[in-house]
Amino acid sequence: MPDLHFRQISIFGVGLLGGSLGLAVRRAGLADSVVGVGHRESTLLAAKDCGAIDRYTLSPAEGAAGADLLALATPVGLFGELLRAAAPALSPGCLITDVGSTKRAVLEAVAPLVPAGCRFVGSHPLAGSEARGIGAAHDNLYAGALVIITPTPQSDEATLARTEQFWQALGSRTRRLDAATHDRLLAQTSHLPHLIAAALVESLSPEAAPLVARGFLDTTRIASGDPAMWQDIFLTNRDELLAALDRFQAVLAEMKSALSAADSAAIRKLLDQAKQSRDGLLM
Amino acid sequence: MPDLHFRQISIFGVGLLGGSLGLAVRRAGLADSVVGVGHRESTLLAAKDCGAIDRYTLSPAEGAAGADLLALATPVGLFGELLRAAAPALSPGCLITDVGSTKRAVLEAVAPLVPAGCRFVGSHPLAGSEARGIGAAHDNLYAGALVIITPTPQSDEATLARTEQFWQALGSRTRRLDAATHDRLLAQTSHLPHLIAAALVESLSPEAAPLVARGFLDTTRIASGDPAMWQDIFLTNRDELLAALDRFQAVLAEMKSALSAADSAAIRKLLDQAKQSRDGLLM
Repeated sequence: MPDLHFRQISIFGVGLLGGSLGLAVRRAGLADSVVGVGHRESTLLAAKDCGAIDRYTLSPAEGAAGADLLALATPVGLFGELLRAAAPALSPGCLITDVGSTKRAVLEAVAPLVPAGCRFVGSHPLAGSEARGIGAAHDNLYAGALVIITPTPQSDEATLARTEQFWQALGSRTRRLDAATHDRLLAQTSHLPHLIAAALVESLSPEAAPLVARGFLDTTRIASGDPAMWQDIFLTNRDELLAALDRFQAVLAEMKSALSAADSAAIRKLLDQAKQSRDGLLM
Repeated sequence: MPDLHFRQISIFGVGLLGGSLGLAVRRAGLADSVVGVGHRESTLLAAKDCGAIDRYTLSPAEGAAGADLLALATPVGLFGELLRAAAPALSPGCLITDVGSTKRAVLEAVAPLVPAGCRFVGSHPLAGSEARGIGAAHDNLYAGALVIITPTPQSDEATLARTEQFWQALGSRTRRLDAATHDRLLAQTSHLPHLIAAALVESLSPEAAPLVARGFLDTTRIASGDPAMWQDIFLTNRDELLAALDRFQAVLAEMKSALSAADSAAIRKLLDQAKQSRDGLLM
């Protein structure tokens, strides 16, 4: 692997994902300095105190100046605005990436704003949790995680490889998927489960709430995720989420029909299939 | 608390729940002897080897003889047949309970078979996991768990109290709910989540499977549960499960409608509510 080192990594947004990125980068010694950019000084100060960044600024332009790697780690909806402010200060050769959960929208927002001489490659680390904020950040959030890298027809191989090497240096595995495929598959594996968990929690009656046990809690844990982030995800991947929801509703209707008919054999077959599929995941 | 001790506790079915019951009872010193009853000698032998029972038999009548506590821990669908075989051998004063997940069906199957001088009180420990079998049994499965005790108009207070004391001696909390209320609420907290998890797994496309991460795995973990047990549960609580499913589908339809309309405020409101409800569980 070629020597991977950055003079300055600037992280826009130092919550769970951005803060953990700073901690991991600094632990791995990947950069001479790590700069945090945000709109709330208390968060930036907390990120500095816990060792996620070396210094911070509230100004996107100031934060972008001197960076050879810029990582966007705010909610996806802010990427355009931030990059517009940062672009004039970016040096040629800067690699721009992000940690956003939907990729077509990111590409649309970011690609037109990338200055000549800079490159953008979208990344999506399948990491994180229902926790949020710099207080939940830790330096091994990305260790062992799968990071999806999203090439476009304009991507050059050297930039893609450098982006992969960056994540691999933090202990992540990487896989390339174009943005449309990413959004279609993640709608099934991540966005639909969130919608389902939220619906399950909301369908619980108040008198049933004291009786929930581990099964219900695990099944709905992700519904505690940051609503602002999930609102962004739902809106920027609406078509694919709706398609995944259609698939789910069709399966559910089949199960309901077997149950309504008290069709013991059909119920057993569905339960057997589901167990087999679930047991087969991540073997 | 009055002195709680049994001469002989007979456990019908020594899988995860029955085996863990034996281990907990023996650790707590609640009985002079613990007898296991089952239809597979290898399982009974494993239960004896791990210390869950003192001795075993394949005969329900032989296992019932001498018991002052009989615990039914097989799939619910076998309770009637087993108790019919055991009843002639039961001594007056024997307390019969169970660990079944639905309670109206248990009451219907068991109540007519309880011999004069014996008493039945249904129990449902909210414990267990997607694991199964004696290999997964452990002596603190019931510690801290909520056990629902299901009185009927025929229950006498002394028998209810003795059943509660039994579970409390194993570290469980207890709560009384009639069988119909139990089935209605558990349909929401346990049976519907299982159905939903199974449907979510089954709606995943093969190409998306390699991309699942912790969120999907947690949300669908319970779909790995024993299909035979869940088939029983679904069939014996079919009406309440269908009612819970109707509620869920209504909430899901509301979310789909907000999403279809790209109604950002409505989506945010639903996500906020779900987070608040989820955060409030088991506080």
